This record gives sequence, C-alpha cells and structure tokens, in this order.
Amino acid sequence: MTLRIGVIGAGIMGSDHATILHRWISGAEASMIVDIDADRARQLSERVAASWSTDAAELIEDSDAVIIASHDSTHPELVLACLAAGKPVMCEKPLAPTLAEAIEVYQAEQELIAQRGGPGLVSMGFMRRFDPAYVEMKNALHSGSHGPALLLHCVSRTVTSGPGSTSRSSVTNSAIHELDIVPWLLDSPVVEAAWQAPRSSSLAEGLQDPQIILLRTADGVLAAIETFINARYGYDIRCEVVAETGVIALRDSAAITTFSGKSTSTSLAADWRPRFADAYRLELQTWVDALNNGLVSSLPSTADAVRANAVADAVITSMESGGSFVTVPNPFVGSKVGEVNGTS
Amino acid sequence: MTLRIGVIGAGIMGSDHATILHRWISGAEASMIVDIDADRARQLSERVAASWSTDAAELIEDSDAVIIASHDSTHPELVLACLAAGKPVMCEKPLAPTLAEAIEVYQAEQELIAQRGGPGLVSMGFMRRFDPAYVEMKNALHSGSHGPALLLHCVSRTVTSGPGSTSRSSVTNSAIHELDIVPWLLDSPVVEAAWQAPRSSSLAEGLQDPQIILLRTADGVLAAIETFINARYGYDIRCEVVAETGVIALRDSAAITTFSGKSTSTSLAADWRPRFADAYRLELQTWVDALNNGLVSSLPSTADAVRANAVADAVITSMESGGSFVTVPNPFVGSKVGEVNGTS
Amino acid sequence: MTLRIGVIGAGIMGSDHATILHRWISGAEASMIVDIDADRARQLSERVAASWSTDAAELIEDSDAVIIASHDSTHPELVLACLAAGKPVMCEKPLAPTLAEAIEVYQAEQELIAQRGGPGLVSMGFMRRFDPAYVEMKNALHSGSHGPALLLHCVSRTVTSGPGSTSRSSVTNSAIHELDIVPWLLDSPVVEAAWQAPRSSSLAEGLQDPQIILLRTADGVLAAIETFINARYGYDIRCEVVAETGVIALRDSAAITTFSGKSTSTSLAADWRPRFADAYRLELQTWVDALNNGLVSSLPSTADAVRANAVADAVITSMESGGSFVTVPNPFVGSKVGEVNGTS
Amino acid sequence: MTLRIGVIGAGIMGSDHATILHRWISGAEASMIVDIDADRARQLSERVAASWSTDAAELIEDSDAVIIASHDSTHPELVLACLAAGKPVMCEKPLAPTLAEAIEVYQAEQELIAQRGGPGLVSMGFMRRFDPAYVEMKNALHSGSHGPALLLHCVSRTVTSGPGSTSRSSVTNSAIHELDIVPWLLDSPVVEAAWQAPRSSSLAEGLQDPQIILLRTADGVLAAIETFINARYGYDIRCEVVAETGVIALRDSAAITTFSGKSTSTSLAADWRPRFADAYRLELQTWVDALNNGLVSSLPSTADAVRANAVADAVITSMESGGSFVTVPNPFVGSKVGEVNGTS
Repeated sequence: MTLRIGVIGAGIMGSDHATILHRWISGAEASMIVDIDADRARQLSERVAASWSTDAAELIEDSDAVIIASHDSTHPELVLACLAAGKPVMCEKPLAPTLAEAIEVYQAEQELIAQRGGPGLVSMGFMRRFDPAYVEMKNALHSGSHGPALLLHCVSRTVTSGPGSTSRSSVTNSAIHELDIVPWLLDSPVVEAAWQAPRSSSLAEGLQDPQIILLRTADGVLAAIETFINARYGYDIRCEVVAETGVIALRDSAAITTFSGKSTSTSLAADWRPRFADAYRLELQTWVDALNNGLVSSLPSTADAVRANAVADAVITSMESGGSFVTVPNPFVGSKVGEVNGTS
Repeated sequence: MTLRIGVIGAGIMGSDHATILHRWISGAEASMIVDIDADRARQLSERVAASWSTDAAELIEDSDAVIIASHDSTHPELVLACLAAGKPVMCEKPLAPTLAEAIEVYQAEQELIAQRGGPGLVSMGFMRRFDPAYVEMKNALHSGSHGPALLLHCVSRTVTSGPGSTSRSSVTNSAIHELDIVPWLLDSPVVEAAWQAPRSSSLAEGLQDPQIILLRTADGVLAAIETFINARYGYDIRCEVVAETGVIALRDSAAITTFSGKSTSTSLAADWRPRFADAYRLELQTWVDALNNGLVSSLPSTADAVRANAVADAVITSMESGGSFVTVPNPFVGSKVGEVNGTS
Repeated sequence: MTLRIGVIGAGIMGSDHATILHRWISGAEASMIVDIDADRARQLSERVAASWSTDAAELIEDSDAVIIASHDSTHPELVLACLAAGKPVMCEKPLAPTLAEAIEVYQAEQELIAQRGGPGLVSMGFMRRFDPAYVEMKNALHSGSHGPALLLHCVSRTVTSGPGSTSRSSVTNSAIHELDIVPWLLDSPVVEAAWQAPRSSSLAEGLQDPQIILLRTADGVLAAIETFINARYGYDIRCEVVAETGVIALRDSAAITTFSGKSTSTSLAADWRPRFADAYRLELQTWVDALNNGLVSSLPSTADAVRANAVADAVITSMESGGSFVTVPNPFVGSKVGEVNGTS
Repeated sequence: MTLRIGVIGAGIMGSDHATILHRWISGAEASMIVDIDADRARQLSERVAASWSTDAAELIEDSDAVIIASHDSTHPELVLACLAAGKPVMCEKPLAPTLAEAIEVYQAEQELIAQRGGPGLVSMGFMRRFDPAYVEMKNALHSGSHGPALLLHCVSRTVTSGPGSTSRSSVTNSAIHELDIVPWLLDSPVVEAAWQAPRSSSLAEGLQDPQIILLRTADGVLAAIETFINARYGYDIRCEVVAETGVIALRDSAAITTFSGKSTSTSLAADWRPRFADAYRLELQTWVDALNNGLVSSLPSTADAVRANAVADAVITSMESGGSFVTVPNPFVGSKVGEVNGTS
C-alpha cells in the first residue's frame, strides 16, 4: 500500500521532505505539492513526480496524510484544517509561533479525540529524536551503567542566522530543538529555565548571539545549552550527559579524515541537512509505517510541542528580566483535558 | 510502481536483503522467499509479508526481479536460470566460487546481450561501492587536491571465521571485498598480486590468519591489504589512500563516546551489518530505482565480478608458490566479446 | 651553578616537586626536605639525595630558594617567613585559605618591594599556565585568526574528593585552577561570578557535587565551568574557547589507542600528575632559570593569587545567596600600593 | 655533580642536543661545541654558554663525555677516537654509513671491553626507544592482555627529502628508525627483509619514494613499513601492533583541536623535532643519569646499531634484486666476541 502524502511548503524543508518521500521511503509517495509561489510548487512537483497546487485545502482533500513545512506563522491554521478534515499530519517544528496558539491547536486535537476516540492525528517534526546518535546516547544513559544523570552540556552552532532573526527567535527557532531533546533524553520535564549571554558577536546583526540557556528538570538535572547561530565555522551539534559514574557524548560523525597542508582534518557541514539526513528519513519512515499499520506514531505529539513552547517562553522571560531562573508554567493547567505534565 | 522482488536464501544476507526491501526501500517489496529449508523460508516470509517456497524456479517465474543470497556454490546455476528467464538479478558476491564458473556466467550474459541487445541483467552485490565513506574517499581522491594516488593501505578484520574457512576462502570470501574496492577506488585494474603471512594466530584453526596481500594496479599504485578473519576484538574495516601531497583515510564511524572506568571509548560492531547498513540500503535502492526507471544499474557487473575472481586466483597462486608477485590473467582473453580489461 | 632548593611538605605535591627537582631540572637540586612528620621527611630526602628536618626555619635559612607544598593553612605564615628571610619562594596554590590572609601576604611583599626595590620574591604554583596545550590554545586565540573570544567552556573532573571536602573547598581547592586560567587565557580579569548546581551525586558525601560556575570578564566574555570532584571515571580537564569565527579546544592527550573487546579506547589518568607532568616540570625549570639568571620569574604573582581568591569569594557568595551573579570585589582597593586590577 | 659534555657537530641535531643539555638536563652541561665551520661552532657555543673549537680531538680531551652529531661519514672515526680516549660517547644514528664500518667500531669496543672489563662506552641515539608513546605501546603489548603479536604496521612520512637523498639512503637514514624499533618493540630480531615500491612520487627527484619494507622476525611476526620521505603534508609517524586478541596503535599527539572554515583540525609538525622532543630529552637524561651513577646506560649499544645496519643491508639487497625476501646476515658471525644475535 502506498500512502499518498501532500506536502505544504516548497522551501528548504518542504523540498527535503518531498524528496525523501519520493526517493527513500517505503510505503508512501509525495502525491501533491502546495506553495503560495506556484512556480516553486510546480518545480518541486516535477522533481518528485507529484501534482501541484497553490491551494492547501485542495491538497488536504486530496491526500491520505499531510506534511506541513510552510512558514511558521501558517502552522496553526493548517494543522487545524487537517484536524477538521480528519487527516493525519506531520507538522514541522514549531507547532505555533506562540505558546497560546500552540495550546489552542493542542486543545482542538484533544476535543477531536474526545469526540471520536482514538489517538491524536498530529505528529511533530522534532527529528533529533530519530537521530541514531541521540537514540544510542539515550539507550546508553538508561541502561544504567553510568548511574543517574546529573548534568547535560549541549552546543548548537549554525553558520549564519537567517533574515529577520532576533534574540527571541534564536530560542524559539533554533534552541527549540534542545528544549525538546533535553527532557526526552532525560525522561523528565523541564521545570525551570534561565538565560545568560556574553558580549555578542560582531557578526550577529540585530540580536544577542551566542546565548547560554540553563534548564532544570523535575529530577534535578541541570542542562547548560550554548546556542550560537552565527558561529560561521560550521554546523556543529554536541551533547554530553554527565552521570554519576560515567559520561556519554555525541561524537563527530565525519566519514573520512584528510591529511594535508600540515594538518589532519575532518569536514563540518554547512547546515543541518547532512548531519540529520538519517534522522529525517527515519522520522518519516516511522510516521508512514505507523499510518500504514494503523498504529499510534511514536513521533512527538502536540503536547510535546506545547511543552517545548512553554520552556521557550520561560527562557525568553528570563532573557527579558535579568537572567534569573524562571519557573516553566504548566501549559495544561486549566486545559479541558487536564493532562499531566509528563514527557512522552 | 512497486517492484516485486524474490529473495533466494533465507540466511543472514537473505534475511537482511528481504528486511531492507520490506522496511526501507521505496518502489519495491519482497514478494517471495525461497530457501531449501522450508521453515526458514516460511519464517522469513512472515516477517516481511511475502509468500514463500522451496523452489527457486517458482520464485524466478513469479518475480519482477531476483536477489540471490543462497550458498556461494549455487550462485552460477541460479544466475543462469534468471538469465534464461530474462529476469534482472542482484547476486551476492561472489558470482561463482571459481574463476572458470564466473567466466561461464559472464559469457552467457554476453550472449544474451548479443541476441536481444540492451544492457546486462546481472548486478553484483559488492556493497562497499555504496558506502558513503568509500564514496566520499573516492570523490576526495579524484578531486585531485592531493595529487595522484601512490599507495593504498587496507585492513579487513572480522571477529571469528565461519565454519569450514580455509586460507583460500579467506581470500575468495573476505578479502574479495578489497579485491573489488581497490581498482574501483583507483579507477585502475589490478595487474599483479602477491601474498605474505606472519605466524598464524593460535585462535585460527585450520587456516593461515592473518594474511597480507599486495596488489599492483595498471597505474603503478601498490595496495597493501591485511585480512584477519579471527581478529576477535571487533569488526574493523580501514582504508587509507596515500597520494602525492596528501592522504585520505576512512574514519571510525561510532556515534557516541563513553567515558568510564579510566578510559574513553567507542564501540566496535561484532560484524559487518551495522558498519555497512547504509551501503546495503543504498545498493538496493539504486538497483530498484534503475529497474523502475528502465535504466542501466550502476551496480557492479559480471565483468567486475570476473575481475575480482581473477585477482583472487592470482593471490592464491602466490600463496601456493612462495609469495612472489603473480600476474593477474586477463579473464576476457579469448572470450567471445573480447572485452578490454578495464574497471567499470 | 646549582641552586639549592628546600621543599616544605613531603606529601603528594612536595614529593612531586622534590622528585622533579632531583631528576629533571637543570641548574637546581632538592637540598633539604621538611615535614612535620619526621619519617616522611627522611624517606623523601633519601629518594632525592637531600638532607631533612622538621624545622621550616632551618630549611629557609639553609636554602637558596624554597618550595612550599605543605597544608594550605600553613602557606601564609611560611611565605611571610621566606619574605622576612629574603628568600625566593614558590608557593603551591592557594596562597592562603582566605582572601584576607592572601591580601595580608600580598601587602607584606609589596612593603618589602617598597623598601628594597626589585621584583617580588613570591611565585605561585598555578602550573596550568605552563601546560603546553593551554599555552598553544592561548597563542592560537591571540593570533587573532578566529576573532575575539565570546565564550569559554571548562570542565574539571577528578575521581574522588579528598577527606574533609566541602562545597566551598571544591571552589577554593579544585575550581581555583579555572579561576586563574580563565583570565590568563583571555587576558581580561573576572568581574562577576555566579554559581549553580544540579542534584548532587549520591557518591559525593557532605558536599554539593558537581557544580556549575559562570564567570564574566571585563571584556564581556562568559565562562561556564563544570567542577565535579567525584566524577569517578577518571581525571578529565577540558577547555574550549568559542571565538567569533572559530573554536579552539584542548584535546585528549592519550598516547596510544587500544582496540579490544568490541571497543576502541584510550586511557584516562587517575589524577592530575600524569596530565600535568610537563606543566610541573616546565614551571619549575622556568622558575629556576629566572632565579639563576637574576630575572623576574614569569610564574604568577601574589597579585594573581589574590585575584583568584577574590573570584572564589564571589563564587561562594553566589553559592550562599541563591545563585545570582555577584560582583568580584577589587581586592586591591585601599591596599597601600593601589595596584590596578589587571591580570599579569 | 655536573657532567661536562662536548658536542661534535653544530647542525640541526647537534644544536638540538646542546640546547637540550643546556636548558633541560639535570646533572650535565654542554661544555664545548665543535664544528668544521668555526662560525657555526661559535654561534651555538654562545647560545649554550659553552666553549668552542674546530678540533674534535681537543673536545674529546676536554670533556667527561661526548655527543657525536656530525655528518654520518665521520661517525666511525670519531667513535673510535672516543674509545681510544676512554670517553663515554653518545653517537647519533647511524653508527656508520656501511655495515662493514659499523662492525669495525663494534669490534674495537669489544676489544676494549676484553682488555679493561666493564661495560661498553658507546651509546646509540635511537631516540624513539625513549618516546613515551612507543614505551607505553611496548608495555601494553608485553602485558600480555592482547596475546602475542602477529603483525606490525609502521608508517614514516617526512615532508621533503634532504639534498643527495637516494633510494638507498631513504632506508639507511630514515627507515633505519623502524629497523631498530621493530625488533625492540617485539623483543625478537629481524631475520628476513623484503622491499617493494609503487610508482614514485613526481615530487621525489632522483629516488624511489615511497617504499614498502617487509620485515620478518625470528618469532614469525611480519612488519609492513611504509617510508615516504617526500610526503609533503607533514611529519607523520605511526605504528600499530596487531596481536591475537587486540590491537595497539600510536595516537596523534596534537594538543589542541581547531574548528574553523567548515573543518575540525589538528596540526601536524613539519619535522621530527616537536614529535620527538620528549624522546630526545629523556634519552639524554637517561644517558647522563647512568654516567653520573656509574651504571650501564639503557641506550642502544653498538650491537644494536650493527643489527639495524645489517637489516638495512638486506633491505637494499632486496631492492636491487627484484623484491624477494632476503635473509638478514648475522653480522657477528666470525667476530672475535661471537655474540649471539639477540636484541638488547
């Protein structure tokens, strides 16, 4: 059975998802491409042997399932449209630009579940949970060989910030991956967050860059995160868990070493796509397999997305109020479904 | 379009190929499993949602294309049967246990091509050509940044030799990967081979292990290969090209580093499957894509297989005659098609 | 000319210094050993061909120069005695257990300089400034190739805390190395410090361990320091400078790699001596060379020691007051010499 | 007690030895420098606070012990002069340009021992035996944890060959280090040697470069050595021992890692001095300590030097006769002392 998946957004991530579906995924195909730019939609559709449109409603109608990779601001409305049509949807992070909108989508999904039963329809594109290295690290940690975790050091460096980047968007758009992966790795939600910064790089215009984020989980683990979106030298993601009797760290994934010009070197990627190519593929295959087998997807849920947004809100509050620790609000308090604040 | 692929052999490699087809390949499915052991065939067929049989002829009849992963001794006959039925086939290495049989299959394919035109039907499973690290190494070498290649150092270590292993089978079954990859990397055929050995490991029963193989290409590059099939400590494949102004080496591909018990360590696999998981997947996807698009597969051909067998023959001649360099015979001399001894 | 150096303290560091003098240093010898434990003094003296005593005054009288490696609490009195006798002295860190005592010693030295002119007599044993890796890192940073520094990540892990360790002594005795090396690396004094901690390791009795220290320099660089004195797995010191266009990091200094039991590994030391063996030797040779040539030693001064103590005080104030940033007091304000708060 | 050491030769190695004596060695000083070029002798003597001369006889007369670092061709005559004067001497490798001359010196020393008793006076400068990494590797091998050795892989690459280099001098001057270190590591003498080569680098004028040397020890271990003296990219020495259940390898000794321009890199030295700085210092300190304590030096002996020369002869015979294995002659057969061909 070949699942027909419509892809909304023909930019970098939409193109990536459509191409992965077309070339690498078993049991699915990219069936339609939508973009507000008709040329862009058409060009991508030709590369992946799909139809195209500029009308998202047409795509949702036509598809077995939907991938949303359009501008962040469009995510809530499009997810709500998929929910209304009863179509499974994989939404690129973030679920919404603000916590309030994210909660709104979450509640809409909860209402649908209350009405018709069954699992939720929305899966979130936090692809790092499918990266083999993060998965191996989580397994090694929870094997217990090194005792319980105490500290986490994360580094997230990208080459150049996109247009319109701000100190806040550095948190909500880039560090958001760490805000999701830290509680996932540790199996414990983030309860407090603080923000600090050194002097800003002269190459970072209009924003504070780099930044240091501190997270504290319910279990008392402290995570120190560096996010630096104008690091220039390369795309570099690191993570190290310090446990009571041992330490586990992600390792540089270069495939070859070169000896040349008085140095030994390995290459760094210019952006996230080579580093997380496997993660994107495994994420989509996992989602497609769940859909084809009528199972609940193991991708993150809207509740996970809401939690990441709530942590981002606390980080930004700390940023704007002097850097002290700020309690992460329970985003589900007062929600109709009264869900407990656990991580999935 | 979903290609229906029959898999002959439900042992380690057959299971791997069938599972990869079922879970990871776009545009194909494992449609039937054959094994001489009916239970084994049935069990694998259930895991990959295929039918099963003990009759290879039935499978060839039923399938759009065939994968042969049964015992080495059955390869020639099964490939000939696929040729007779006009079915595309991907045969695990080696094409045949002996050079003579390999040439026979090669000639049968050439005759078919002469009769009906078009490309050959047989693709060979030398998966390392699809390993991203080898591919990156080859690209880096041929970028020319480091000048022409002069030397190659290869190491191939496995944990324990299989039952019935001999000094000769260490060449034809294990080192054969290096005999294929060396001329592929260098774009130059092997013209001479020599064999040497130290004292044998006391843990290697009934064979000389490790062995050293020296290959000389038409371009004058020398490759020094260590093959050690009872290395015990782990599966470890290395390759380093020494060029005029720089060196390129494969790098250990571990994803995480562990700090524990006064040491920093990374894991080594127990066998080839984790190390070459990507290579097997990319090999099959490339083959399936070519079949689905009516293109010639970029997998190695029977001519490549014959060449690797011819080099293995020269190595064994050296082994049995004191270790001097032995000229690799041109296996195509006198063949009806008079093909030149170049590498693909 | 062979300088006669007396060593006070025959514990781990005193033994190390005496042995290094005896075996590796050009132009000096260990001439006398003093310890309050006569047996310990005698035994060490025999190993290094020196005389021995239990009387520090006798040693100071007898020696051309003095090394103080006795208990921290004895440092101020012994340094003052050396100053009174006009003998050059190399004092192990810290100069004093408290900032007030350190300032007292600093002022005594300043008065002596005011009276008799010339340079100071006291050199401090912050050996990391002589570690070739830290020196190479500092040179690489100040070469300017990577732009100005923005962030520093430091990790200091030891196997087990000594008897009587407390949350405070973890700062004054272990992290003190980072409190000295950070401003030295950056050529900018520390002006603010903050302290945070995760849950404590169950293996750390009677103290908070690990701890996170944040330092801000006058230049606006932020340093994030992990100090973990019961890390169990090995002695592990790391440092990474993040600059505007590149990053420089210390590298694991293991000399061999072992492949065994399905893993690739390098050894970690059990304590600081193998890691900093070169640093201790170079520190002593540099000190001896300066003395033998009548030059000012390039070892850190009492002013450097006072600065490190002042930063430690700010860290402890933050520890005891909720973790906010605390301004590092200028320890030289109101001092008779009115020295500017620069780093040497 | 300060040993007065005369240094013959003020070129690269003589300058290095004199500087090390002056700056780093406990218990000795560079007392006189001799060079045929008076200016060069004088300039070096000023840097190390020694006297100077152009007359080696004057230096031998004046010194407690002698270091010979002049042109290879002068070694035999100068060592014989030291023997005649009864002065301990440390001679840079090789002991002599030819095996016959080396044997002559060896026999002269044996006669002196026969006459006056006691140990020999000549120590050889094969500094790698004092490199901490090689020593750690040898200890790890002989700890027995990995079973007996089977294979050795050595790589010796330098940036550019010196003037007048030939295919033969690449063996006698560069690979000679491996010809000494292999039997030392394995505790087993080399009994056979063979030589092979790929096409030569276009950057290597007038010689075959790189070369492959195969050595077989009495214990049946096979060592495969690459020597490449125009490797251009950097000074790179590697060694890996393959034992029955594990492998031990030298590790790149860079102190810092740099992340810059889309790559992660470590530096390679331009020549051997930084790589073996510790080895040269430890070699000299060991020699000086033995002399000062009246003990036999643990540096290699003239017998070791003769053995390395004998292996080099066999390699060159193989080079000139088609590449087959050549038996290493027992250089001590017929010598007056009839010494057995073991390694020290």
